[in-house]
Amino acid sequence: MAVGQETIRVDGAAKVTGKARYTDDFQMPGMRIAKYFRSTIAHGRVKSIDVSRAKALPGVDRVFTYEDVPDIMFPTAGHPYSLDPAHQDVSDRLLLTRHIRYHGDEIAVVVARDEVTARRALDLITVEYEEYPPLLNSKDVLAEGARRIHPQSGNLLAQHGFTTGGDAEEAKAASQHLIRGEYSTSIVQHCHMENHTALAYMDDPEHVVIISSTQIPHIVRRIVSQALDFPLGRIQVLKPYVGGGFGAKQDAVLEPMAAFLTMALGGTPVRLTLNREECMVGTRVRHPFEMQVGLGLTDEGEIKFIDFDAISNTGGYASHGHSIPAAGAAKVHYMYPRAVYRCHARTIYGNIPTGGAMRAYGSPQVHWGLECAMDDVAVKLGLDPMDLRLKNVARPGDLNSLSGKKILSCGLVECLQKARELIGWDEKRASLAKEQTGPVRRGLGVSSFSYTSGTYPVCMESAGCRLILNQDGSFAMQVGATEIGQGADTVFSQMAAKTLGVPVGWIRAVSTQDTDVTPFDTGAYASRQTYVGGQAVMRAADRMRTNILEYAGLISGHNPADLDLAEGCIVFASQPGTLVMSLKDLAMDAYYDKDRGRQLTAECSYKTRTNAPAFGCCAVDLEVDLELIKVRIKEIYSVHDSGKIMNPINARGQVHGGMAMSIGAALFEELLVDEKTGRIHNNNLLDYKVPTIMDVPDLNAAFVEPFEPTHPYGAKALGEPPIIPPAPAIRNAILHATGVAINHMPMSPKVLFKAFKSAGLI
Amino acid sequence: MAVGQETIRVDGAAKVTGKARYTDDFQMPGMRIAKYFRSTIAHGRVKSIDVSRAKALPGVDRVFTYEDVPDIMFPTAGHPYSLDPAHQDVSDRLLLTRHIRYHGDEIAVVVARDEVTARRALDLITVEYEEYPPLLNSKDVLAEGARRIHPQSGNLLAQHGFTTGGDAEEAKAASQHLIRGEYSTSIVQHCHMENHTALAYMDDPEHVVIISSTQIPHIVRRIVSQALDFPLGRIQVLKPYVGGGFGAKQDAVLEPMAAFLTMALGGTPVRLTLNREECMVGTRVRHPFEMQVGLGLTDEGEIKFIDFDAISNTGGYASHGHSIPAAGAAKVHYMYPRAVYRCHARTIYGNIPTGGAMRAYGSPQVHWGLECAMDDVAVKLGLDPMDLRLKNVARPGDLNSLSGKKILSCGLVECLQKARELIGWDEKRASLAKEQTGPVRRGLGVSSFSYTSGTYPVCMESAGCRLILNQDGSFAMQVGATEIGQGADTVFSQMAAKTLGVPVGWIRAVSTQDTDVTPFDTGAYASRQTYVGGQAVMRAADRMRTNILEYAGLISGHNPADLDLAEGCIVFASQPGTLVMSLKDLAMDAYYDKDRGRQLTAECSYKTRTNAPAFGCCAVDLEVDLELIKVRIKEIYSVHDSGKIMNPINARGQVHGGMAMSIGAALFEELLVDEKTGRIHNNNLLDYKVPTIMDVPDLNAAFVEPFEPTHPYGAKALGEPPIIPPAPAIRNAILHATGVAINHMPMSPKVLFKAFKSAGLI
Repeated sequence: MAVGQETIRVDGAAKVTGKARYTDDFQMPGMRIAKYFRSTIAHGRVKSIDVSRAKALPGVDRVFTYEDVPDIMFPTAGHPYSLDPAHQDVSDRLLLTRHIRYHGDEIAVVVARDEVTARRALDLITVEYEEYPPLLNSKDVLAEGARRIHPQSGNLLAQHGFTTGGDAEEAKAASQHLIRGEYSTSIVQHCHMENHTALAYMDDPEHVVIISSTQIPHIVRRIVSQALDFPLGRIQVLKPYVGGGFGAKQDAVLEPMAAFLTMALGGTPVRLTLNREECMVGTRVRHPFEMQVGLGLTDEGEIKFIDFDAISNTGGYASHGHSIPAAGAAKVHYMYPRAVYRCHARTIYGNIPTGGAMRAYGSPQVHWGLECAMDDVAVKLGLDPMDLRLKNVARPGDLNSLSGKKILSCGLVECLQKARELIGWDEKRASLAKEQTGPVRRGLGVSSFSYTSGTYPVCMESAGCRLILNQDGSFAMQVGATEIGQGADTVFSQMAAKTLGVPVGWIRAVSTQDTDVTPFDTGAYASRQTYVGGQAVMRAADRMRTNILEYAGLISGHNPADLDLAEGCIVFASQPGTLVMSLKDLAMDAYYDKDRGRQLTAECSYKTRTNAPAFGCCAVDLEVDLELIKVRIKEIYSVHDSGKIMNPINARGQVHGGMAMSIGAALFEELLVDEKTGRIHNNNLLDYKVPTIMDVPDLNAAFVEPFEPTHPYGAKALGEPPIIPPAPAIRNAILHATGVAINHMPMSPKVLFKAFKSAGLI
Repeated sequence: MAVGQETIRVDGAAKVTGKARYTDDFQMPGMRIAKYFRSTIAHGRVKSIDVSRAKALPGVDRVFTYEDVPDIMFPTAGHPYSLDPAHQDVSDRLLLTRHIRYHGDEIAVVVARDEVTARRALDLITVEYEEYPPLLNSKDVLAEGARRIHPQSGNLLAQHGFTTGGDAEEAKAASQHLIRGEYSTSIVQHCHMENHTALAYMDDPEHVVIISSTQIPHIVRRIVSQALDFPLGRIQVLKPYVGGGFGAKQDAVLEPMAAFLTMALGGTPVRLTLNREECMVGTRVRHPFEMQVGLGLTDEGEIKFIDFDAISNTGGYASHGHSIPAAGAAKVHYMYPRAVYRCHARTIYGNIPTGGAMRAYGSPQVHWGLECAMDDVAVKLGLDPMDLRLKNVARPGDLNSLSGKKILSCGLVECLQKARELIGWDEKRASLAKEQTGPVRRGLGVSSFSYTSGTYPVCMESAGCRLILNQDGSFAMQVGATEIGQGADTVFSQMAAKTLGVPVGWIRAVSTQDTDVTPFDTGAYASRQTYVGGQAVMRAADRMRTNILEYAGLISGHNPADLDLAEGCIVFASQPGTLVMSLKDLAMDAYYDKDRGRQLTAECSYKTRTNAPAFGCCAVDLEVDLELIKVRIKEIYSVHDSGKIMNPINARGQVHGGMAMSIGAALFEELLVDEKTGRIHNNNLLDYKVPTIMDVPDLNAAFVEPFEPTHPYGAKALGEPPIIPPAPAIRNAILHATGVAINHMPMSPKVLFKAFKSAGLI
């Protein structure tokens, strides 16, 4: 059947032929272009601004400054919303600001007839600043008497502390070995292909439409309502195809302003688009972390205690910052669930670009800390890193400390065993056991991970699907979950096709979400599409199946219970080869019979009240060229337990993409902050290095597939996890190759040079 | 409550502020413009066509002729479709034709980068015709040996004959007076404000999107599928706001070609727009009728027998032609349901513009015949026309011969009595009883009518509605029925608001129908929106109400049966002033509680299996200026029984509009066919006369409002009927004033001059 089979993407042809419509493909008569005027300091206050020359430029419609926007503080994080005020997102920003919090902060906005005019107008704006020293790192930010970046809250945005799995002191006491290490990560950019862009207009004096490249149309609708104090039911958000987001579009970055502008201009269509340079700095980034990891082990290598402490720098605004270190730290525990886990996570403001959601949401940072520490302790105790993990990782029946429920499906042991076998771990480690000399050293490393499928029970999880039987027997399928390039529409089509007994091609996923009519779903994040969205798809499809068989019973005179759907036909359940009628004939009767029938539709809005951890690991075989300070990956294997794989082509693609991103983050990706000014040196794709085809080795993805009982098709998360384990595995392989523990990511040539030099290797 | 109250149009502000989006407001990058190359003869064949110079013109993308289109005959009439092949529409046309059937027939189409280029290219096309004498009237069309306009079918497209209400010969025998008259009507144009226009593109190699100014998006979807043999599920039709249709857009006039063009151009957006001249001739018109009406009466003025015979000329193509005279003739019977009614209706092809649906669909013509005959017999027998009607018109309990069921609500007697009173019939008729002399004569006339609410049981009647409760307590409402300027969205909003106990402003009608996701409904025609569409709205709203009260019970702990909805709140049914919770609070809980709830939606697809005749009359007091050949309406009253009136403002607007259109048709509107060439002389709004503000007197609308039990809110048809009775009432008033019976519509100055002259009045 459709689920589990290699299935060509349903949006593939539209995308490769250029027919798929993205936000910038929407144009409107009379449309105006808006551009932000951004600060050229990282911290301070605007003393005065002069926009008169900009306003006077022919072709400029309007110029708005911080003085012209509503005095409404709003949040931007793409969370589902919580009825508990303590769990709501942080409202810490206005549409434009006089108080500058990062280099590039939005002070004013120009609306003009075209982009050239808008840019020329920006050049005519003059501003006088009162400048403060930028607070770029935790030491400065948290220093006694440090200037408050947000006066109302202070510089410590949030902190979370908890201990789970038992008593920390007892666990410590039971540990024969206690070690600590410090680990850190840098600012990483999503580098999605399609820049942030939104187009807003009014089609009624009381109704605003926003077409946006977003992962979260229904959440954007709610946030725009908050930001503008405008009724939610009068805001319509349309999400066409999206050219990647990776979390950067799980944030209401542009939409509140786009809506404000069209409303201020009496409904004139306004397009607000960022260029690449603005996207790199003025949207969202991955938070840099400073971590301290303590591990307590027995002589036998049993981990009794994990002590995790992190400081995350969210930059100028909260966005997702308050929740990310806690989220990342919480999800790591069920990798080693039998240890006592003590966690302390703080998020600070800083005068750097704003951190937001990014693929795996804190987990790459937390796993960097923990999985580096694992190999550090393995070295110290003389244990094989693979054996150390196999001894300690989760097994079915262990407790998921996040949900308080048992882990039902868990293939992490099998993942590690498969990786061990695929990479030839034992033979190679044995052959490399003697000390290596010479300019090229070789090493093997491994890292494992755990993650969640959606956000429950931390957040509400809701998904929706509606199916319509067309006259020709095909189906239209509306899902609230959003296709952003990850292949969600394909997997949903497969699921619906399986339940309805039709070929995948008979399901047409309506890929443009429209908050006026698309069933509610909070969007694409938290690797929730298949696991959470699939629940609604399955239920809607099952209802549709029931509707069809009941109608088939009505018009054929057979008992619906004796009928089944197969290959687009109604057949006898007991004789699947015997046709009762085709689905098309049934549909035509339902639509067009004068005296019976109706349009057959089925809808399901469903809150998922389960979660299921996904697991996996990565194993790397690499060479370190000490003279060239170059890391050459010879072989790399990521093995995932994401439950049953819905579409192997898609799944491999997800894993390959995550591996490439993690390799980039491991070895060279970082936004470089000028230590004096807070300015980002490499705000473009020439200077910010993402892996090219020359940097990416052959990528190997493998799966173990336990059936996850809480999901109708047995699936668990797969979208984000692939980005987690490669970086620490590479680090651990470098450690194996050179004996040098690199504790900072990225392990750029600069970092490696310094480390090798101080280790006396060069 | 909302229903029945004067309610401002929900789309009013969007329309008067220019924010409402119509088809031509959609523009796309790379969009091309298509223009038809039309025949300059009315009847013949293209011997050869040379498009080489047009193709060579820079900026021309493609030129297609009749040789380049699929060899698939298709229908264009906007009927719901029938599973009975004998009841399906007539497939008699290709996308382009070599066989010319009217002056303006579509031979080729040019696609170019802009309209100027496309028009220039048209001028470069040369064609050689084999020309035949145009067959313009029934005599020529039906003459022995006349050339077949459609070789496959002959010139008689359809004929229907039936007798109902008893035995014709017995009824004749029971009549003391038998009279016959001949009556005729001309070709009338809809003259909707917004010309026909459609934009098509592909957003996937297997999916075509058509944005069109149509009354019938779901029907267009089916017809395009037939015309192009392309799967219905891969065709998406979007209907934005429509600037009037009056039936001209109840036809797939442009959409099959627009879809063909974008598909032929690999998905490039193509706009196919007609200018006013093309709209006047190349779309659809009202069929001209030739009628013979016989009436049999007793001495007491009881009508025993109605003998109706009509020939309707559908022009070049069938469109709705085969069904219109039968439809018009069938609906007239329950005005005088106690008479035996014999009907014979024929539809012929002719080399004139194609007739299609137009407001009241044959009834204005049929009523012209019958209601003129009524006054002719009144004159002959010396009866008061008002009394004659009062004696014979339908009363509750009479049989509806169309449905075979009893007429439940009928206020026709009350309508006539009200009109009689309003216009001061008895006093004025008495004072005008002496013979009039002098150049200005005054008269009073009346006409009554009957009509249907929707098309059941002739056609399938299906409507759909889906409601979504938003987070703020407001509702999104999707209806398949289409707002085309008639106010349907407002009335649906009122109905939903009433059932849901919220202000009308809390309902947002999603006015753009999208066949991919909008609940199925066959569209705006047959005065079916309130009567048929309302059934689905009421049921969906009722389901939503149940869902809300059940959820309120769940979260409040009260029994849902004890709760009610009022003014946007959940209240106790027994104490409507006591708040349980606001709808917004309930909605927020349903959306965002982590462990319960869901998005609350409700949907209904419903086939209406009843019909309810609407009735009414018009009374006119006018002066005829014999010297100026000018008719001056002094007073005019239309009194309607449309059941309960949903929105009095809208209802009056509908009646006023229909009265104005009928006055135009009565006195001057007609497309003038050149008798030699078949060319239309007045294909524009300068030469084709529609009533201006100077031509329209004060219009008075009144209602009697019996509750119609087959409709949840007691409503019946109102959209089309107002166009029916004014024209014969004006004619009968002229007869009263002058003693001259004018049997042809329009009673243009030319017609009046001839008649008055031959009567010796001038």
